[in-house]
Amino acid sequence: MPKKQETVELRDVQSQPAEHPVVIHKVGVRSVPFPLVVMDKEHEVQHTVALINMYVDLPKQFRGTHMSRFIEILNEYRGVFVVRNIYAILKDIKKRLKAESAHLEASFSYFMNRKAPVSGSAGLMEFRCQFIASLNGEGRRDFVLVVEVPVNTLCPCSKEISVKSAHNQRAIVRAKTRLRKLVWIEDIVGIVEECASSRLFPVLKREDEKYVTEHAYSRPRFVEDMARQAAVRMDADPNILAYQIEVESFESIHSHNAYAEVISENWVSP
Amino acid sequence: MPKKQETVELRDVQSQPAEHPVVIHKVGVRSVPFPLVVMDKEHEVQHTVALINMYVDLPKQFRGTHMSRFIEILNEYRGVFVVRNIYAILKDIKKRLKAESAHLEASFSYFMNRKAPVSGSAGLMEFRCQFIASLNGEGRRDFVLVVEVPVNTLCPCSKEISVKSAHNQRAIVRAKTRLRKLVWIEDIVGIVEECASSRLFPVLKREDEKYVTEHAYSRPRFVEDMARQAAVRMDADPNILAYQIEVESFESIHSHNAYAEVISENWVSP
Amino acid sequence: MPKKQETVELRDVQSQPAEHPVVIHKVGVRSVPFPLVVMDKEHEVQHTVALINMYVDLPKQFRGTHMSRFIEILNEYRGVFVVRNIYAILKDIKKRLKAESAHLEASFSYFMNRKAPVSGSAGLMEFRCQFIASLNGEGRRDFVLVVEVPVNTLCPCSKEISVKSAHNQRAIVRAKTRLRKLVWIEDIVGIVEECASSRLFPVLKREDEKYVTEHAYSRPRFVEDMARQAAVRMDADPNILAYQIEVESFESIHSHNAYAEVISENWVSP
Amino acid sequence: MPKKQETVELRDVQSQPAEHPVVIHKVGVRSVPFPLVVMDKEHEVQHTVALINMYVDLPKQFRGTHMSRFIEILNEYRGVFVVRNIYAILKDIKKRLKAESAHLEASFSYFMNRKAPVSGSAGLMEFRCQFIASLNGEGRRDFVLVVEVPVNTLCPCSKEISVKSAHNQRAIVRAKTRLRKLVWIEDIVGIVEECASSRLFPVLKREDEKYVTEHAYSRPRFVEDMARQAAVRMDADPNILAYQIEVESFESIHSHNAYAEVISENWVSP
Repeated sequence: MPKKQETVELRDVQSQPAEHPVVIHKVGVRSVPFPLVVMDKEHEVQHTVALINMYVDLPKQFRGTHMSRFIEILNEYRGVFVVRNIYAILKDIKKRLKAESAHLEASFSYFMNRKAPVSGSAGLMEFRCQFIASLNGEGRRDFVLVVEVPVNTLCPCSKEISVKSAHNQRAIVRAKTRLRKLVWIEDIVGIVEECASSRLFPVLKREDEKYVTEHAYSRPRFVEDMARQAAVRMDADPNILAYQIEVESFESIHSHNAYAEVISENWVSP
Repeated sequence: MPKKQETVELRDVQSQPAEHPVVIHKVGVRSVPFPLVVMDKEHEVQHTVALINMYVDLPKQFRGTHMSRFIEILNEYRGVFVVRNIYAILKDIKKRLKAESAHLEASFSYFMNRKAPVSGSAGLMEFRCQFIASLNGEGRRDFVLVVEVPVNTLCPCSKEISVKSAHNQRAIVRAKTRLRKLVWIEDIVGIVEECASSRLFPVLKREDEKYVTEHAYSRPRFVEDMARQAAVRMDADPNILAYQIEVESFESIHSHNAYAEVISENWVSP
Repeated sequence: MPKKQETVELRDVQSQPAEHPVVIHKVGVRSVPFPLVVMDKEHEVQHTVALINMYVDLPKQFRGTHMSRFIEILNEYRGVFVVRNIYAILKDIKKRLKAESAHLEASFSYFMNRKAPVSGSAGLMEFRCQFIASLNGEGRRDFVLVVEVPVNTLCPCSKEISVKSAHNQRAIVRAKTRLRKLVWIEDIVGIVEECASSRLFPVLKREDEKYVTEHAYSRPRFVEDMARQAAVRMDADPNILAYQIEVESFESIHSHNAYAEVISENWVSP
Repeated sequence: MPKKQETVELRDVQSQPAEHPVVIHKVGVRSVPFPLVVMDKEHEVQHTVALINMYVDLPKQFRGTHMSRFIEILNEYRGVFVVRNIYAILKDIKKRLKAESAHLEASFSYFMNRKAPVSGSAGLMEFRCQFIASLNGEGRRDFVLVVEVPVNTLCPCSKEISVKSAHNQRAIVRAKTRLRKLVWIEDIVGIVEECASSRLFPVLKREDEKYVTEHAYSRPRFVEDMARQAAVRMDADPNILAYQIEVESFESIHSHNAYAEVISENWVSP
């Protein structure tokens, strides 16, 4: 190493040859918070906040990647970081980081307006979502939409064997899908909620609470039932290409959770 | 600053005078993982893992504390870090860090054996606990026991207005207590669980699930009811000096939680 | 309890008398996600997402509070939930829940544009913030602003005793303040960052990385130093009434953290 | 559904035929806390606490699995739940749940004694570990060992371009390995730490802090360098069959993280 002085030339250490010629599968930045604009099914714009990861591959001959460029690219899309820009961002990343493949993951809160089933009292429901997008050497694209849907599950066994009532609880369904055509987050939420004992609501007045309690009691579901019903509905949807469905139920009679997972035959982890 | 050389004397920078003469309320180490031995009510020894924080005050004339000494002291109690040693540890901390006050917080998992109510099938239930202990200048001691108890709450309103069933869910009760005499973790758990719609169980066979479902339905509780009942029981226990009770219910019909908090008149946050 | 039928009148169970006449300190809803609009110092509007808790007290004669009303009130402020509305929201809560006191806590991401120190490359920095606001029986207001500032701390002891270099690391400063007059989040961030070895940046080019490395090396700081300097600056600011400053440093030579806390004499936990 | 009475026979709802004949990939229990005994390289027994997930597959003709059996089986191994029992547990699960495949995941804290490099001051270092084990229809076994190693990384670019010092920080290396023969957790930790700028220590006196600071400065490492060096060492170890290495560095000059991942050619996600 040269003697350092104030006048030292600022060497590009990252571009030096790697000591060990090993291909790096993914290299980049993680947990970058960033404002995100999402268009919803009502054609309205939602402002939300995303936590973003961005990676490229690194050929074996280069020592390091230039991490600041990821953030620079992201900033150029500030104010217009919407879904339809994702491949433009990935293309920029590939080009400016001289990479063969580029990956972008963005997790964010998505809101839907929801009315109570009897009173019509409205409020906002949050759904945690994630986009997982990749662009590889030959321009091959991959896009996985992840939607987490909180629901109510009421136990069929508990209902069957008990004189009255049944244990029920909050559960989370995590649906990961690859799509043939555009599918709105609202559509995935709809498919999943149809399979639950009940949807959840931000506001319920007394008449609504009566309705939801009785409705859930009329639709008991194991985590296994929910996962299977969601799979059958996704199989029947021509716009859904592949899926992984995970149901995790925060059992109200245990302190551990019940879990079921169904994957379509053509599912590959992103 | 002197020119540094390999032969430089290792100055005690921490003992230098502070630039600004400001008393530091707490200074120390956080999130130190450490094995902990706890004696349970059955007089058996439990091995668990704690996450530990340790602090002292720092008089305004000293620049820094000697953080390595906290870990050294902890290591001397390795294998015998049991509850009854806490004040001995605090005394050592005060002495070796030349402090007026010393604080130790230890969070850990505590297990209790539990039998299903009908079949008797047994399993282990975990309760998250914390000790918060302090020793101040005049040798005054403070000890707060925190016990988190997961329970089932069944909604009285939902039961009252619905033809059948009622929404119910897992809830967490966090009980913080100051004690007059020794109270076992098992005793706090017992007080709290008596106030719930039902206790939780690690193993339930069909006959147990029937029992628990019907039992919970016969004991509907709002978070407000649970907090108040726990307060009344703690007021009646001569060994409990002061308390804060927090009940947080993971509502099965909403994606947000319901919360109630009752404190005794003499409660002071540790 | 009456035999229930489909035609049962929907009783207001919450308004029934409490079984145990115990005052409930806080009762309400927790972890409600909600879009929030914040005005920043540049007089521009930021759209962000908050996680919200809302509570009231509950007199000893009532069994329960009406939780759906919290969410209804929140929804009425949809699109205009900005800081200056907080007391209007609290007033509404007090009135419609017939309570003596009302509390609102909102945690959210706040973004500031930041330029690199030499190249001027710009990007967004996130700061996690929280508003903790209360309104009590006599109209007495309390407002605590919490700002979390990630910074770099470079160890003075390590620098002093080592021939070259010094261990440094990311740290988080959590500043809780009560204010006499309006203080912008930007101002709190500025006070805290002035006390660090260095600010953090979203984008740094090589010339910036050189600057930041050398700048941090010229300003070594213990967690104790940072906490004290922040206290001195807050004492000197006529707009800051009271404060609690916590510095937690994710030590790069240990797997545990270093911690220091200074409170002003008139600080009371919210 | 039959009219329910107190004398109702307790039907086995889980064994009923499934409404939709969909194979369930994984069904079971999650987040079960349980005491675990681990043998370490010094041939001493460590008591720790694990968080356990257990799953089986579910053929398309059955509606549900019998979740209580997972916990019953776990309890039978209480006090002797050591690594070498994992396949016995999986065999029991397969048999008693009449499944083709069984999976067990156990995450736990593992402690190693560590002496400071100059003073020899000793303390305990925690490493978060996970076992991921499966047994499939034909008795085929899969075992993945996950070890998380916190380390120090000092930036080569920052060192090269700065007159003095370099930014450094805590990083986490997550090494997932499939093994040909027994490899101790201590061995994986050793391989990973050799690739870092420096190991971390529970206790460091002044002379140790000088050593660690200077040692790290003499061994600058990008996340890319660390991932590649670990890959080269694992390739050279005849006992390691396949691996995934993830390095995440909590950059001390940014509030986001740097990340690099290398996988061996034969790596398959468990």
